[in-house]
Amino acid sequence: MTYQDFSFLVRVYIEDADPGGIVYYVNYLKYMERARTEFMRTLGFDRSATFSKELMFVVRDIEARYIAPAFLDDELCVTAAVLRVGGASFNLHQSVLRNNESIVECDLCLAAVNRSSMMPCRLPKDMFLALRSEVSL
Amino acid sequence: MTYQDFSFLVRVYIEDADPGGIVYYVNYLKYMERARTEFMRTLGFDRSATFSKELMFVVRDIEARYIAPAFLDDELCVTAAVLRVGGASFNLHQSVLRNNESIVECDLCLAAVNRSSMMPCRLPKDMFLALRSEVSL
Amino acid sequence: MTYQDFSFLVRVYIEDADPGGIVYYVNYLKYMERARTEFMRTLGFDRSATFSKELMFVVRDIEARYIAPAFLDDELCVTAAVLRVGGASFNLHQSVLRNNESIVECDLCLAAVNRSSMMPCRLPKDMFLALRSEVSL
Amino acid sequence: MTYQDFSFLVRVYIEDADPGGIVYYVNYLKYMERARTEFMRTLGFDRSATFSKELMFVVRDIEARYIAPAFLDDELCVTAAVLRVGGASFNLHQSVLRNNESIVECDLCLAAVNRSSMMPCRLPKDMFLALRSEVSL
Repeated sequence: MTYQDFSFLVRVYIEDADPGGIVYYVNYLKYMERARTEFMRTLGFDRSATFSKELMFVVRDIEARYIAPAFLDDELCVTAAVLRVGGASFNLHQSVLRNNESIVECDLCLAAVNRSSMMPCRLPKDMFLALRSEVSL
Repeated sequence: MTYQDFSFLVRVYIEDADPGGIVYYVNYLKYMERARTEFMRTLGFDRSATFSKELMFVVRDIEARYIAPAFLDDELCVTAAVLRVGGASFNLHQSVLRNNESIVECDLCLAAVNRSSMMPCRLPKDMFLALRSEVSL
Repeated sequence: MTYQDFSFLVRVYIEDADPGGIVYYVNYLKYMERARTEFMRTLGFDRSATFSKELMFVVRDIEARYIAPAFLDDELCVTAAVLRVGGASFNLHQSVLRNNESIVECDLCLAAVNRSSMMPCRLPKDMFLALRSEVSL
Repeated sequence: MTYQDFSFLVRVYIEDADPGGIVYYVNYLKYMERARTEFMRTLGFDRSATFSKELMFVVRDIEARYIAPAFLDDELCVTAAVLRVGGASFNLHQSVLRNNESIVECDLCLAAVNRSSMMPCRLPKDMFLALRSEVSL
């Protein structure tokens, strides 16, 4: 995480943990989506901009490395940094951290699709520009 | 459970269990919804009948008693029996059983609503009749 | 909600909403558990006090009325008020509100159990006293 | 999917779908875990073998490509094929298919850990041998 990354705090509740007493690995992806939603909001794009009658975003691919377990009641910091912006999709890197320890590292690609046809469509111009200005150097 | 009740089998997986090693109490409600969906299917109402552009069903109220815990890997039987059918809603009793032991007992009321307005609407006639013929005496 | 109730804010994310575009009714129970956890924390009981090697709490029964739908991106306020405290269990009323509109009203009973035997056990004395001092008049 | 792959059927219920009307991408990972659990069972390893007082398995890394959406009520087939077996971990490829159409393709690595220390530990000998005999050529 570089100092300028967006970050969002989450607390681990019972709903998130599995019988092993650790966060169920699937649920980190929910934390990351919460963080992405708030990241987009800071760029000026609330839900009506990212999930409308015409447009929505789907995850195209995801690559996650689970480095250390998180436990019930932990406070975690979830980051989001833009890696690349294309005409119809963009790539993020997201980390889940406890203090400064890395818990999960994840790369993912999000694609804009038309809600009726489910076919790829172009990012709205203002979103494209805003995301591009966020691309980490 | 009387002999004529509809029943549906579910297996407890890691996604369902909590750090206490038992099924997270919230997740029994998911099992019950799976069973209701299959119950409606046996009556001839598949998803397109219960979730369309105009109509959907929402849970109005729910009353659940948790009697015994279920554990990872348990095979559970989920029942559904119609208690009452009204013009715009109906009531079910659902049990979650392991062998013949009661794990959860639940009464709930489902209401038909218009998907755009979210206002109550009438049950389709054929669904009303099919559910009424199922009412336990 | 009376002025003195504990309250906790949650935001509705995609993970929480169903194909009807509203919060999946099961997920309000997760919101309520988050609020209960934070409520107990304000009383001085963090996770190690409510989920230890010997003790944990299970939901005994729950009665929920769903009054109005909540939608993606809504900010909801979840309350917790103690109704009754017994030797081995206590009862709460929890509301989910949007602004001051009631979305869900819920009564539930939580019971202390021994983690190995799953048998009821007594509330720790300090927890009993702290909860009793919270009982709404 | 080759003809000899293990496969497991799942139905898409409301709990699985998101406001876009498609399976929430996170939930495919739950389907895959159900399939892995049943795959291990066919090899003779039930829950007590994969989740004991000493041993459990954690996901080390995951790489998923989402190819096409799945919808409410779809019946999906989830496969599991062993790609590699090491001393303390193994790799699987899992597909989610609808009829023969690929919905999600996923590679993942599962590692054995000691439940108390969360440190890597060796696969039990019989599990190592059983998994190795499953490695796709």
